[in-house]
Parts: sequence; C-alpha cells; structure tokens
Amino acid sequence: MRLSTPTVKIRNTKLGGKNPIAIQSMTNTDTADAQATATQCIELYEAGSELVRITVDNEASAEAVPEIRKILDAKGYKDLPLIGDFHFIGHKLLEKYPQCAKTLDKYRINPGNVGFGKSHDENFEKIIKIAIKNKKPVRIGGNWGSLDQELLTKLMDKNPDEDIRIKTLVKSTLDSAKLAEKLGLKHDKIVLSVKVSDVQELIKAYELLVKKMGRKPYALHLGLTEAGSGLQGIVSSTVALAILLQKGIGDTIRISITPQNNEPRIREVQACKHLLQSLDLRRFQPKIVSCPGCGRTNNALFQKIVKEVNHYVGKNNLEPINIAVMGCVVNGPGESRQADVALHLPGKNEKVSASVYIK
Amino acid sequence: MRLSTPTVKIRNTKLGGKNPIAIQSMTNTDTADAQATATQCIELYEAGSELVRITVDNEASAEAVPEIRKILDAKGYKDLPLIGDFHFIGHKLLEKYPQCAKTLDKYRINPGNVGFGKSHDENFEKIIKIAIKNKKPVRIGGNWGSLDQELLTKLMDKNPDEDIRIKTLVKSTLDSAKLAEKLGLKHDKIVLSVKVSDVQELIKAYELLVKKMGRKPYALHLGLTEAGSGLQGIVSSTVALAILLQKGIGDTIRISITPQNNEPRIREVQACKHLLQSLDLRRFQPKIVSCPGCGRTNNALFQKIVKEVNHYVGKNNLEPINIAVMGCVVNGPGESRQADVALHLPGKNEKVSASVYIK
Repeated sequence: MRLSTPTVKIRNTKLGGKNPIAIQSMTNTDTADAQATATQCIELYEAGSELVRITVDNEASAEAVPEIRKILDAKGYKDLPLIGDFHFIGHKLLEKYPQCAKTLDKYRINPGNVGFGKSHDENFEKIIKIAIKNKKPVRIGGNWGSLDQELLTKLMDKNPDEDIRIKTLVKSTLDSAKLAEKLGLKHDKIVLSVKVSDVQELIKAYELLVKKMGRKPYALHLGLTEAGSGLQGIVSSTVALAILLQKGIGDTIRISITPQNNEPRIREVQACKHLLQSLDLRRFQPKIVSCPGCGRTNNALFQKIVKEVNHYVGKNNLEPINIAVMGCVVNGPGESRQADVALHLPGKNEKVSASVYIK
Repeated sequence: MRLSTPTVKIRNTKLGGKNPIAIQSMTNTDTADAQATATQCIELYEAGSELVRITVDNEASAEAVPEIRKILDAKGYKDLPLIGDFHFIGHKLLEKYPQCAKTLDKYRINPGNVGFGKSHDENFEKIIKIAIKNKKPVRIGGNWGSLDQELLTKLMDKNPDEDIRIKTLVKSTLDSAKLAEKLGLKHDKIVLSVKVSDVQELIKAYELLVKKMGRKPYALHLGLTEAGSGLQGIVSSTVALAILLQKGIGDTIRISITPQNNEPRIREVQACKHLLQSLDLRRFQPKIVSCPGCGRTNNALFQKIVKEVNHYVGKNNLEPINIAVMGCVVNGPGESRQADVALHLPGKNEKVSASVYIK
C-alpha cells in the first residue's frame, strides 16, 4: 500500500497522493550558461525526466534562471518544471534575484547548510517566506553528507548509538518541515528527502522518517546519494529504490549516476523508467522479454535480433504491449504464448523454423 | 531474517544455510566445443561466478563434459563447480554418458520438460537415481515458460484464477522435489527455483513457494528469467532479486542478461556482485561513493578522477575499504569524513584546493 501523501503541484506536474511516481533528474552544465543548461533540461525532459533540477550556486546562475525559462518557453517547453537547488547562500540569492525566485517552480534547500543556530533559523525563514510569497513548493532535502553538525553533537551527547546519524538526519529534516509550516508554508507545498549513500542506511532513514511523520505524511522524494558510476551506480540505486517503492514509500525518484565514458546524462532517466516499469508502477514502452542465450542458442543471430527489436522499440512511440524474443524451444513457446507479439528462434540443433506469434 | 535452508555442497562450494549467497552464471558457447566452453567457464569463475552452468543439450555436449573438466583441472581450476543444464532428454544423456553424469557437480532439471504423465515420472526417476548413485545435488528449476501443461490444465479446470500459472509452477516444482526425496535424494541435495519473467509475479512465486515449503525449506536459487538486454535487463533483475533477498529469500542468484554490443558475458556476474555488496550481504571490493556531479562541479576533471579510481579498484585486489570521490563542498566534507580514503575536489567557484582524507 502506497503511503497516503498529499498532492504537490509543481508547475503543471503533480506528485504525491495517487499521482504516478514522478521521475526527476539534474543538469550538470554551468547554470550561468543559459543556453547549455536549457538544452540539457530539454534533453532530460524529452528522455522522461518530469522534473528538472538545476543548481543555483552563485549570482551568475541566479541571473541566468529567467533566461533559461525564456529559452524553454520559446522552444515550446512551457510545461517543463524547473527546480532550483540551493546550498549555503540560497537565502541571499533568492532575496537579491526576485526574478529567479519567481521563475523557478520549486526550491530545493538543504537543512544542513543554511547556516547554524540562530542564523540557520533566520536564513531558513527568509527562504520559506519567499516561497510563500511566490506560491512555490519547497523540497527540504536532508543529506547525511551535510548534516547539521550542531544537532548531531547535541544528540550524540544525549544518547550515542550507531543510528545517531540517521536519527539526526530525520530529525533535522522533520524539524525544518515543521518550522516551514509554522511560518505559513502549506503542508502540500512541502516535499521531504533524507538521502544517504548506503543502501541499508537509506532504507532505515526513510522507514524512520515515515514512522516519525505519523498520520500526516509529507510527499517524499527518494534517491541514494553519491551512488557512484557505471554498473555500481545503477545497481545500488535500483536496489535501494526498489525496496522502498515496494513498501509504498516514495512519490518522486532520482537515480544519480556519475557519468562514465561520455555516457549521456539521460542514462539516469532511462534507469528510472526501467525501475518503475519493472515494478508495474508505470508503463512507458513495450516490455521486451528475451532470454540470455546459452549453449543451445544461435547467439550471433539471436543477439542481433534482440538488439534490433530493442532499438526499434526505443526509437518508436509504441503501445505498451508485451514482446518476446526467445532463442530456443525450452522456454520459447511458453513465453511466446503470453506475449502480444513474439518471435522464437530455433536453437542450434532444432528444426530451422522461426515461429512468430501475434496475440 | 534469512530463511533457514539446508547447506548444499556443490563440489567444494557450499550454498544455503548460513553460507554466503553464491553467484552463478551460464556459458553461451557450444558445449560440444570443450576448449571454448572451458575458457568461458574460467572467465566467469575468475569474474566471481562461484558456480558455472553449461547446457548439455545433445550427445556431443554430453561427450564433451569430461573433456571440459580435464581442461579446467589442467589449468588449475580444480575447484570450479560445473553444473549441467538438462531439458527434454536429460534422462537419456545421463544414462548413455555415465562419465558426463560422474563429472558434473550438479544437475539442473526442469520439471516442465522431462516428459508428460507416466513418462514424466519415469524420466524424472531415471535422472534422480543417477544423481543418487553419483552423490550429486540437483536443482529442480521450474519456469513458467515451460510449465507442465497437463498440471496447468488440471488446476485451471478445478479453480481458475489469475494466479493459476504461479500456483502451477510452485506446485509442479514442489511435487517434483517431494518425488525426488521419495526416490531417495536427500533434502540437502536439492535446490529449487521458480523462475518467471515478470518482477511482481516472481516475488509472488517465491513467496508462495516459501509458504508452501513450510518448516523444512529447500535451498533456493533466484533469478528473473528472460530479463532482457542492456539497462532493462540489469534493472529488472536487480529490482526482483533485491526485494526477495531483502526478505531473506535466496541462497544463490543469477542475473541473466541478453548480451548487447559484444558486451562480455561476465557483466551479469559483476551485476550480481554489486547487488550483493549494496545489500551488505557480501563484500567484494572497496565501496566507492561518488556524487553524480552537477552545475557546481568541475565535471571533466571530476569524472576523469572517478573513472581512474574505479579502474584502479577494479584492477587491483584491495581491502574492502570505503572510498569517497566528491565534486564540491556541499556533501564533500561529510562523505569524506565517513570514508577510509577520500578526495574532495573544489567546485567551480570554490577555492582551488583538493582535500585528501586518510581514515
């Protein structure tokens, strides 16, 4: 059963409640370069990233935000939700650049780095008030890489245990959410996340967060932080998010991967689509069932056909049917019967005839 | 809590019980080509596949098995467990080629394709008796692509519902296991699997199997069958296996991927290692934590360093320490503090100094 969270509207995209789990991603261009950033936003959006985040890390970036929006609108991407990622100086930038604050569709702030003690609360208050004025939702995104050190020390003194960092992360994030509500930000304008870089710790963190939120949960963003690159990045993020989503936890997800070998940034978006589709939470494209091939299979021809089918499906906007491409008689007929369209090739010593099944 | 299964010994490898979750893979060479098959067995084993399966699909393959073993032994791979995959004619091959039966360390048979009705039981009995005589463990591997059609029809007539295929698969597999035990095969010589190609159905199948096994569970092999190729294959297998392993289900795993673009066969073994490591079930190599980079990061240099660190770790047999490579000050210091060795680079507008942390 999915956790019953409120619906949060971000531009024209809704997340939380009964809305589909939304996919998001983040650019790695210099935000001050409006053209390059707008281009990457479009790439990510076209690939299926329903929310696109950009870092707003200095004055040049803040100044570029309205320019990025203008390019997106001019190119016909009026619906693309643009989210600003703020650290350390968010309060200053949002104050000094009201057009930036007005243009962004959501602010992401990190409770661990908006200052300390009294200045933390003052800085945080500034950001929340700007969000309220501009009617913008806010993600309060905690991360154990940037924990509120003051709170950590305090909790450690009180009751040191091995889960203290998770507890601090959850407490810091929830305290900030409550403070934001006290300042007037509506419950359905808040999204929370508690990111850590270890899978089992991440699961613990979200489960604790869900428990502590009690009967009035906030909408939740999921992600394994600093997941790494290549196969490790994909596998570890998939493991973490699959387990949480299967428990009904999560309204929007990001898989973050350090790009390798000029890998396109959209790979993380594609991974999200496969994740949600394999859990039956979303359906983006035909499901292609194909065996791994073994010593029974005519592998060269078989792999070529699987590749071509995948390529065709990837390039064309098809109905979400089930397709099977099978390499021999062992599971070929069985999988084929269940698919909408199937091709089952003869194995090495089988009669040379390829069976095609329609419906 | 991990399901309390018996320990099954396969050559010198133990699976089940409290033994580490074992990784397995399968060759896609022609088994009759002993040289090519032995070479791929070694590649898979060296990559981390602790059990290697080969198809034994015809007389030439059965004849090649002792030859493959000879090559493995001569090359110093006396410990490599060699498993034979049988379909349709396993009883005939094992009977006609006693050296093949003696050489293999485990037989995998599919209850859905050893014949039908009376001949099913006769063929199955032949295989089990050969296994008992040679003291070999057997995997009874059901697959919904090759369901016992007779049993399916019978159950469908009795009580048709949407889960009938899963129920038939589980019943057919368990009935075969019970029959094998009745014939004299010991409980700790049996491994079961119930593979299907849909993630949620797979979870249902294994949960039903666990329930039906009751207090005396068999050791379990996990795998999503016909998972597909590329990112889809990796992600969907990871999703399925992560959810089951997290529930304590599974003693050995295979991730089967249709190879794409001359991808090495060992990729499926590497995926298994990342899966088990990210769940904290096994530890194979240092854990590398790295951020995805964003507009704050000096991406070219950052990605180059991450790639080099990954490459170095992949090539060298290092202690399983924690390594962090971070791109800016946001989560850099926090992640670095928790790592054994860390490098955190300055972001675009930060002071140019890279911090190195040891312990």
